[in-house]
This record gives sequence, structure tokens and C-alpha cells, in this order.
Amino acid sequence: MTRSILGIDADDTLWHNETIFQWTIERFIRLLGNHALSDHLAERLIATERKNLRLYGYGIKGFTLSMIETAVSVADEGLPSSVIGEILALGHEMLEHPVEPLPGVAATLAGLKREGHRLVVITKGDLLDQEQKLARSGLGDLFDAVEIVSEKTPEVYARIFGRFGAGEGDAVMIGNSAKSDILPALAAGHWGFHIPYHLTWEAEVAEVPAEAPRYRRLSRFDEVPAALAAIGRA
Amino acid sequence: MTRSILGIDADDTLWHNETIFQWTIERFIRLLGNHALSDHLAERLIATERKNLRLYGYGIKGFTLSMIETAVSVADEGLPSSVIGEILALGHEMLEHPVEPLPGVAATLAGLKREGHRLVVITKGDLLDQEQKLARSGLGDLFDAVEIVSEKTPEVYARIFGRFGAGEGDAVMIGNSAKSDILPALAAGHWGFHIPYHLTWEAEVAEVPAEAPRYRRLSRFDEVPAALAAIGRA
Repeated sequence: MTRSILGIDADDTLWHNETIFQWTIERFIRLLGNHALSDHLAERLIATERKNLRLYGYGIKGFTLSMIETAVSVADEGLPSSVIGEILALGHEMLEHPVEPLPGVAATLAGLKREGHRLVVITKGDLLDQEQKLARSGLGDLFDAVEIVSEKTPEVYARIFGRFGAGEGDAVMIGNSAKSDILPALAAGHWGFHIPYHLTWEAEVAEVPAEAPRYRRLSRFDEVPAALAAIGRA
Repeated sequence: MTRSILGIDADDTLWHNETIFQWTIERFIRLLGNHALSDHLAERLIATERKNLRLYGYGIKGFTLSMIETAVSVADEGLPSSVIGEILALGHEMLEHPVEPLPGVAATLAGLKREGHRLVVITKGDLLDQEQKLARSGLGDLFDAVEIVSEKTPEVYARIFGRFGAGEGDAVMIGNSAKSDILPALAAGHWGFHIPYHLTWEAEVAEVPAEAPRYRRLSRFDEVPAALAAIGRA
């Protein structure tokens, strides 16, 4: 049996996340519908979010600030401050939203740990929020380490996997985002197990070259053990 | 010569930070003065910030959200949304504020590194913001590692210093906050070099027991090498 270093993304890989953003965006649009030209509100919010990414990074706090900025910019001076209060409340709700693991995740992780694989969460987002989600998910004890990073680059994967003594091709990154989880892990010489979520945040859309030899596409998290076996690592 | 693991706090230890918060609070009060009962505005902001700490953690994004929440709660419905826009701009300015190292910091760090000490930044705050400040400070290359954590507990110090192979008493934590930098490092069995800043955020105020044998109080960062020599570690 070959034990591997498994890097595992969190949002939309371990638990639902993008659905909560989409649901919040719908509520934001309904909230502003009475106070602003509601045309293209979602597009304007996304544009604001992208503009602020350089300063705010990923996560709910920056997203809430971008919702407020969008509201201020599309509404006239008559926007009641109670609407701002309601946007703040949307942000709080997101931060306190129950963490719902995706099907098969808990049992699969427990099995992988039992077989001696080293499991490392590698995720972007707000530090405290991601730590609290991991704690609330009940999955925290299954991981050997948690790495919350501001950006997922080949250098970041090389540094994290290197700390566990992984040479080229020794580690497998598992995640839903081709752009953040798969392409940079492949570029660092490791494996990428891609498990798409049914929704993808626009900023995370990317193509994976079909011929990448260390790329595997899975449908569900519980296919990970068989995929590891197929590449001789289980 | 004994090489040590030196943990070094960032905000108000390596560079000015609390002054930027204080200056922002003054501008916030002036901004709201025309639109709200301005009595106790600073106290209300601090109370909001404390209430939200559990959800937002440390850092400028959470502070900006707390400024907005305070403005909404103290002002009546007539608060112009342009005021909210100005608070967002205050947050952006904080995030882009020049990073000004404290006197003697750069030269002292370079000397410590030359002598073979391992230097690790250990800081709270927003992940991306702290990384960007370290990059803008020009000090980033002097450090062996950067640890951005959501809370500074004895366990956190034990884990970080342990990763560098430090046994009890082998590491020194250097910082301005008795509560976050010194007391938990002492509790983890390491040394605490306390360099108070002229301002202390209320949430960071704490007393250090005068008799703690591994506690040293310094006036300036450039006193660190002599203090290391005095405890036989340089």
C-alpha cells in the first residue's frame, strides 16, 4: 500500500458553499429591487467583487463589503440605512450558516485516514471563518493539517506538500475548482483529482487540458479511494 | 553562540498599526457628527467590534463592517448612503496605507538573521492584508516563515515553535501585546520579550506577572540582541 499526501479543498469539495452565495445574491437583489435600478444587479455585484479581490481577498467579509458598495453605488441617496443593516445581516447569516458536508465525504475521509494517508485541508477564504466551518463540519479531527492561503499557486502547493516530504508526483490535490485546485497542483508536478460542483463561481472557471497525464475527473467524493487505487496509491 | 527561534508579532511590533486605527476612528466620528448623536460614538464602535469579533475575527475588513453597523445603528433613517460610501473608502485607505516599520526594526532583523536565528512572523488579522503588509514593508525576505493565525493561544505557540524543533524555553516571542504575544508564549514554556507600543487596543490590555522568570520588558526593538545575549542566546 502506498500512503499519499492528499490535499483537499474545502468549499464545494467538502461542503456546500457556492449555493449559499447564490442564495444570498438572490436575497440581495430582492432587497434592492425597491430601491435601485435592479437591472444587471448581479453583474454589478460580481464586477465590484472582482475589483475588490486585490484588497479584500476571498471570503464572506469582503463579499459583504462588496454587496454594500454595490448597493450604495446603484441606489440613489434615498436608500434607507435599514437596507444596509439588512445586508450586514445577510453577511452574518452566511458566516453562521450550518456547514453541510457533501454526500459521502465524512465516511470517505475516515476511510482514507484509516489507510494511513496524510490529509491536509488547503483552502482560500477568511482565516477564522474557514477554521470555524471546519470545526462546525465535524470533520476537523480527520485532518493532519489545515492550510488557509490567500491564493492557490504552484508555489503554494509545492511549499505545503514539500513540508510533508512529498517529491514530484507524490501528492494528490482534490477539489472542485480547475483553476485553483487542479491546474496549479498539476503545474507543481502533482496529481489533480477534479470533482466539479454543480455551480462554479465565475472567477474560478478554467479549462483543464484533456491530455494532462496526472489529471483525473471524478463525479463524487466517494470515488477518491478507487481513483487512488487506479494510480497505484491505495 | 546559541541560535534561537524568534517569533515576532507584526502590527505595532514591526510597524505602526494602532495609530492608523485611531486616526480612522477620529475620521469616522467627524463623518458621523452631522448625522448622529455623536456621544460615545467611539465607545459604541468598540462595543460593536467586540460583539462581532467572534464572527469576524481580527482585521480591517471586520473593523470596516463594524463601522458600518455602528453608523446604521446610531443614525436615523436619514443617513445618506454617501456616508456609507465614505466609510467603505476609509476601509480601503486602511488596507492601502503605507507600511511604516518602527525605528531600528529593519537593521535589527537583518543582524539577527545574519547571526543565524530563525525568524518567524506570528500575527493575527486578515490573511491577505497581513501578507501584503509584509511585502510592502520590505521586511519579508528576512523571515524564515510567516504564520497568520486567528487567535494566539499557548497551543498555537507550542505548535508553531514545535515545528521548528524548539523544546521548552528554546523560543522567544517578541511583541507589543502582553495578552496575545507574551502571556500565551510564557504559558507554552517559552520566553516573552515585551516591547509595548505607545497605544494599546483595549481588547489587548493585560497585566504580566512581574515575577515571570522568562519575561523581559524592552523599550525598543533594537534592544532585542542585547536582551538575547543577557539570557545566553546570542
